[in-house]
Amino acid sequence: MYKIIVMNSKHPKDSLTIITDLVLPSETNPIGNMFGGELLARMDRAASIAARRHCRRIVVTASVNHVAFNKMIPLGSVVTVEAKVSRAFNSSMEVFMDVWIEDRENGMRSKANEAIYTFVAVDEMGQTVQVPEIIPETAVEKERYDAALRRRQLSLVLAGKMAPKDASELKALFE
Amino acid sequence: MYKIIVMNSKHPKDSLTIITDLVLPSETNPIGNMFGGELLARMDRAASIAARRHCRRIVVTASVNHVAFNKMIPLGSVVTVEAKVSRAFNSSMEVFMDVWIEDRENGMRSKANEAIYTFVAVDEMGQTVQVPEIIPETAVEKERYDAALRRRQLSLVLAGKMAPKDASELKALFE
Amino acid sequence: MYKIIVMNSKHPKDSLTIITDLVLPSETNPIGNMFGGELLARMDRAASIAARRHCRRIVVTASVNHVAFNKMIPLGSVVTVEAKVSRAFNSSMEVFMDVWIEDRENGMRSKANEAIYTFVAVDEMGQTVQVPEIIPETAVEKERYDAALRRRQLSLVLAGKMAPKDASELKALFE
Amino acid sequence: MYKIIVMNSKHPKDSLTIITDLVLPSETNPIGNMFGGELLARMDRAASIAARRHCRRIVVTASVNHVAFNKMIPLGSVVTVEAKVSRAFNSSMEVFMDVWIEDRENGMRSKANEAIYTFVAVDEMGQTVQVPEIIPETAVEKERYDAALRRRQLSLVLAGKMAPKDASELKALFE
Amino acid sequence: MYKIIVMNSKHPKDSLTIITDLVLPSETNPIGNMFGGELLARMDRAASIAARRHCRRIVVTASVNHVAFNKMIPLGSVVTVEAKVSRAFNSSMEVFMDVWIEDRENGMRSKANEAIYTFVAVDEMGQTVQVPEIIPETAVEKERYDAALRRRQLSLVLAGKMAPKDASELKALFE
Amino acid sequence: MYKIIVMNSKHPKDSLTIITDLVLPSETNPIGNMFGGELLARMDRAASIAARRHCRRIVVTASVNHVAFNKMIPLGSVVTVEAKVSRAFNSSMEVFMDVWIEDRENGMRSKANEAIYTFVAVDEMGQTVQVPEIIPETAVEKERYDAALRRRQLSLVLAGKMAPKDASELKALFE
Repeated sequence: MYKIIVMNSKHPKDSLTIITDLVLPSETNPIGNMFGGELLARMDRAASIAARRHCRRIVVTASVNHVAFNKMIPLGSVVTVEAKVSRAFNSSMEVFMDVWIEDRENGMRSKANEAIYTFVAVDEMGQTVQVPEIIPETAVEKERYDAALRRRQLSLVLAGKMAPKDASELKALFE
Repeated sequence: MYKIIVMNSKHPKDSLTIITDLVLPSETNPIGNMFGGELLARMDRAASIAARRHCRRIVVTASVNHVAFNKMIPLGSVVTVEAKVSRAFNSSMEVFMDVWIEDRENGMRSKANEAIYTFVAVDEMGQTVQVPEIIPETAVEKERYDAALRRRQLSLVLAGKMAPKDASELKALFE
Repeated sequence: MYKIIVMNSKHPKDSLTIITDLVLPSETNPIGNMFGGELLARMDRAASIAARRHCRRIVVTASVNHVAFNKMIPLGSVVTVEAKVSRAFNSSMEVFMDVWIEDRENGMRSKANEAIYTFVAVDEMGQTVQVPEIIPETAVEKERYDAALRRRQLSLVLAGKMAPKDASELKALFE
Repeated sequence: MYKIIVMNSKHPKDSLTIITDLVLPSETNPIGNMFGGELLARMDRAASIAARRHCRRIVVTASVNHVAFNKMIPLGSVVTVEAKVSRAFNSSMEVFMDVWIEDRENGMRSKANEAIYTFVAVDEMGQTVQVPEIIPETAVEKERYDAALRRRQLSLVLAGKMAPKDASELKALFE
Repeated sequence: MYKIIVMNSKHPKDSLTIITDLVLPSETNPIGNMFGGELLARMDRAASIAARRHCRRIVVTASVNHVAFNKMIPLGSVVTVEAKVSRAFNSSMEVFMDVWIEDRENGMRSKANEAIYTFVAVDEMGQTVQVPEIIPETAVEKERYDAALRRRQLSLVLAGKMAPKDASELKALFE
Repeated sequence: MYKIIVMNSKHPKDSLTIITDLVLPSETNPIGNMFGGELLARMDRAASIAARRHCRRIVVTASVNHVAFNKMIPLGSVVTVEAKVSRAFNSSMEVFMDVWIEDRENGMRSKANEAIYTFVAVDEMGQTVQVPEIIPETAVEKERYDAALRRRQLSLVLAGKMAPKDASELKALFE
């Protein structure tokens, strides 16, 4: 009489996506460092693949959380973007990314920045569809999973879709 | 005995930067809409030119504030990014952008999304340098100027550089 | 019994299109200046959007008038292309462009070059369709509107579609 | 006591440059034909190589003569640009191009359009330098060589650098 | 009662395809030479057009034979890829390419490398279709035609589709 | 009195490099599959990073071994290139790549093809420099390590730098 869809929950590691690539001359600003816009676009590609691996549907970028560019990334660098879904809400997925650069000579990796994008799963007509739940495993994954709820409330407050006083998780931060 | 640098303050309109361009096939996702990452990169170019017009120095992207993609932008659309510096803080500038798409047949413009990026002015060696103050003129410019302080506090709190309890502007929001 | 299509005439300002963008390393020649071909392509995008804004139809490039590159445009420049329809003829539109570069340090804008492209409005099958008339307003718009007729005659003469002796406007030039 | 530079004259065939390439999806407009701007850019690359082969110096685009796009070039076409220097004047060279497309199934080549670009030879500092003379050989080369003088006068008249009454070659056209 | 398809044989020169183009900054590695990958992509485009000219069908890359990069190709070089079908086998075609670079100042051409790609002709559904035979004419074409059979055997052996002992042409090489 | 440089040997896993990325419309041929040339270029970037991670020097592409394209890769696919150094010889490194595509709906990965590139390590002047040895660990790595010697001999024979009769490893293959 009715259809039951069982969606198996997944783990963050199931969506791990890695893009390692060079910084080319056409991707740098006048002082020889990677353009912020170029990194934002690479991260969007990595995050969209991670989201797609989580839900196996078409995904579209819904929002970009605060991204800080803490470290300049010089021409010729090898940049690695590692993306994993950190939390799923109905039809949306938060994807957390770590961006690394490595020194060619000594091989040391250092964190360039972190970023968080949100994607929505849609069908061929562009209508939103439900996505599987996610179960974090490592300590870092659990921490990011918990913080995702605060970020979501912040996002809703900023968009005027939630009253600040109802943003329980967020409110606690300022008490 | 000492050098006095007088920096004339500027108005938001002095930095107005417009990029109007088409959405090409290589910039679209499987359901025929513009990739979020491509729009993020275009906005970075528009915002960097606006910041450069405000301070007349080399500028680098420092951060991207929360960006929501509310509207799908189909292949062949004409997209207009309008960027203006909304507030200046020492060596950094907040740039506020409005993104519009227009219907080819009836010519109506509709708002696709808003975005806020922050840039830092640097010298040839990459050291930060001071930028002129800004004086908002219109009602919208004044509102964005005021909100910029709250966003800055939020940014400092998220980066762990300010205690939530010291974020006066932000705290007021939750009371 | 029959359909009357009233096409409201338009003004040049209705089609004003601005593309402001940087000159990137991949767009420069061996002595570090912007390739002519890259500027020709940017101007084609700006002019096609202006023509489309005038007629709200699909438009295709019909011809490029004489373009002189008077000024070298160095790497890192901010280049602004401003395009406006200058005259409409049946299904074609002449688009006049002014190209500006600006000095980063003192903010002065200088004219890099002018260019004129012609576009034709077509339907989905590629058949030409009529476009609205245009009514110039400013002194510069009126001057460009008048000169457009001479350019059109020159174009027809060069294409062998008009006898030089019939090119009244053009002939007057050489008397 | 003084230096004599003997520059051997050359023939148009010495500068023949051929670019045969596909039309890719990212290079087409909404009705599936190649963008005019993309063809203008390809022609600029072909013409610049032809000019460089004639003079063996750095060359920069000085102007683009009238270009008519007579034929639509659909996605997936094989486009061949053939460029040859048609005439040399002091430090400038006129390059004449024929653009061909070919039918995949029957292999027939048809002329898509012709174009004429002018290049200037410069040294490493951007100063103009003299180029070798050119001696046309075939009937078509001779015809293009002669017409080049008329085009140059037209160009000087349009730029306001020659009075129409002094443009002897051009004037004859209207008598 | 049955259909006879007569496919006229062709000569290598019928498929000659030339791409002459510049090496741009975005195509170079950290020591200022053209990326191997960029040259591989240009050769694929040239070879695919040559194969298509031979068979007048849709063609897809089937394999790349051993390619050696013997000579560095510096930024700003003029690179010429010359491609010709060297042999046809049922539905596949071997394309042989010579890559030349030329010195800007003295105009000397030197061989940068050779490469061999194999293409397969397919119909709109992706099914393989037969291609015309080829008849080599010059001494070099005949030599490449003969060697193509050895390369094909090597390719089949490496793919595990032919026992080394059956590769008659190849075996002779080691005796 | 003299300098001893100890180069620690490395393992294949130390150079593992992963590029996961989408196939965009501008990267596809007329029947909607990824161009061979585009995949060759992506593999070159992945392999060059793997080689660089092994030796921590500048690396340049020396050759591409036989590459077979067994499987068509449709528009919108997620393609993963995994590259690892398989063997080191003096200043050169063989890099072995596995290319995977995955089905969006069921998440199954399938092998699209394998490829082998060789890179040479150079200093800033382009002179070759020695690279660390490699010690294979897994069964697959050992098998690839052994086969690399045969491929090297084949490469030398094809380049005319080794007599077929001296290619001991290779000769054994045909006995």
